[in-house]
Amino acid sequence: MKDVAARAGVGLKTVSRVVNGEPGVTADTESRVRAAIEALGFRRNDSARILRKGRTASIGLVLEDLADPFYSPLSRAVEEVARTNGSLLFAGSSAEVPEREEELALALCARRVDGLVIVPASDDHRYLEPEIAAGIATVFVDRPASRIDADAVLTDNAGGARDGVAHLIAHGHRRIGFIGDRPHIHTADERVRGYREAMAAHGLAVREDWVSMGGTAPDRVRAELERMASGPDAITALFSGNNRVTVTAVRVLSERDRPIALVGFDDFELADLLRPGVTVIAQDPARLGRTAAEMLFRRLDGETAEPRRVELPGRLIPRGSGELPPPQ
Amino acid sequence: MKDVAARAGVGLKTVSRVVNGEPGVTADTESRVRAAIEALGFRRNDSARILRKGRTASIGLVLEDLADPFYSPLSRAVEEVARTNGSLLFAGSSAEVPEREEELALALCARRVDGLVIVPASDDHRYLEPEIAAGIATVFVDRPASRIDADAVLTDNAGGARDGVAHLIAHGHRRIGFIGDRPHIHTADERVRGYREAMAAHGLAVREDWVSMGGTAPDRVRAELERMASGPDAITALFSGNNRVTVTAVRVLSERDRPIALVGFDDFELADLLRPGVTVIAQDPARLGRTAAEMLFRRLDGETAEPRRVELPGRLIPRGSGELPPPQ
Repeated sequence: MKDVAARAGVGLKTVSRVVNGEPGVTADTESRVRAAIEALGFRRNDSARILRKGRTASIGLVLEDLADPFYSPLSRAVEEVARTNGSLLFAGSSAEVPEREEELALALCARRVDGLVIVPASDDHRYLEPEIAAGIATVFVDRPASRIDADAVLTDNAGGARDGVAHLIAHGHRRIGFIGDRPHIHTADERVRGYREAMAAHGLAVREDWVSMGGTAPDRVRAELERMASGPDAITALFSGNNRVTVTAVRVLSERDRPIALVGFDDFELADLLRPGVTVIAQDPARLGRTAAEMLFRRLDGETAEPRRVELPGRLIPRGSGELPPPQ
Repeated sequence: MKDVAARAGVGLKTVSRVVNGEPGVTADTESRVRAAIEALGFRRNDSARILRKGRTASIGLVLEDLADPFYSPLSRAVEEVARTNGSLLFAGSSAEVPEREEELALALCARRVDGLVIVPASDDHRYLEPEIAAGIATVFVDRPASRIDADAVLTDNAGGARDGVAHLIAHGHRRIGFIGDRPHIHTADERVRGYREAMAAHGLAVREDWVSMGGTAPDRVRAELERMASGPDAITALFSGNNRVTVTAVRVLSERDRPIALVGFDDFELADLLRPGVTVIAQDPARLGRTAAEMLFRRLDGETAEPRRVELPGRLIPRGSGELPPPQ
């Protein structure tokens, strides 16, 4: 900063004004300062971050739900990377409402965050284009951006669901249900796709009343599972589409006499201490968050490569519930 | 806002500048605007909120740990109340570091939040005095403020711990251990006080090696519990000081042959589906968050009563682990 001021022949305060877009600088002075910044090889974000005097560096995190335990380790990992990079983290949630995501992301930009990590609820992120053009770094996590090209860190959702359903098939199941989150949520769509692919790959028919996409409200999940588990064509196994569904499924199944096998997408605390232990396809939410945040800070440090999509594998953890055989 | 502008004989933009403390207004104009605001009966916070044009209203939430599931329903409740009041919520965590709490709270104020809900890590909140004087509303939750007089919403921690320990005593236990969070954390201190009071009220001695205050790291909790549970004076029951301790205690106890009774402070997901179910003193974190946020918005709406402390009761939920008898 001193070098910029010396080269432009102005004071530190003037450099700060130019970088922060504050008034009180003549056009001539501004162009001298900008030339000095360029000559000294500052990149736009760098200079803004380093020179933004009197303001703590910060990044924003837009989550889908503050109360979903899946996002807890993800948030903490983003915050740890932020801290390592001398930044504060501000988090908020969209509650899965697209307009709310936009409002929150733009409100964070208006408060001069340097970058955003977003778990998107919207299916149109063009509202971010002016912010990105103005130098805000943006990385999407858990779900990709829509209608803009942006960095994203995802789990291989379809592949994980395929593995989980194939595991149930390998244990003898043929009538396998799927209960997932609402359609058009990227992760929900990908997981049901993996389910269908695994069934098809093993020559098994999918009855449409074995597939239920909707919210994760306990009442809905309970009703759908009880429906699928009754009648002559009752399912013998369930693949649950996320941790919220799994927790309700565990509760419903614990009340039943006839066991139904269960594999859930997402690991959760104490899954190993239940009887039977709950077999899951585990994501690594801390690694998702860490990878996304590190990508963000590389962008803030001036990396200019094309947007990348990183996909992390899911991991099958057998614990008992997914290895129950179908009734004879 | 139009009324203020008309009465002061200035434009809307000028009123906005005065309220937001922006430059470009003469002293004379400013005093006319302020007189108009006063004459029209705006309260300071009200006027700032209503007149702050082009800026979405917002409040800040300072948590202790983004990844502790206890804070998930609390955060969501604060966010729901914020939304009902037309405000966005920005959350961040202190990671239990006092300096970080201060940095985060002041950074939120610098970004013009209207108010703060704080789960404090610091033991000196005088750093907030200038912000409070400038009109930032502040409510503490889960733990009280230190060295300033401020609104607080707490659980009756000592009372809850007393009830939980008395429950173990009623089931025949005499050698009862306590593992809690680090000393000087308000909730940890209050809960160990409740434990000591219940033991004393029943004429039972507390051996100091039955009491362990420290972090909630699983390795530490495991080592302390294994130490207390061995030897001739082994404990027959444990009271665990929060949900992080309880989860590790459940894990350690599940590996042992000889049962040890357990009552934990804080409820947690699936506690009822473990075998035995885990007996807890349940707080209501959603109600803590909702009560604190509603108090905050009443302050923002101009309530000027003396700071209040609201205490919510804990609730004993017997599920099996706390009703195990001591070995004969």
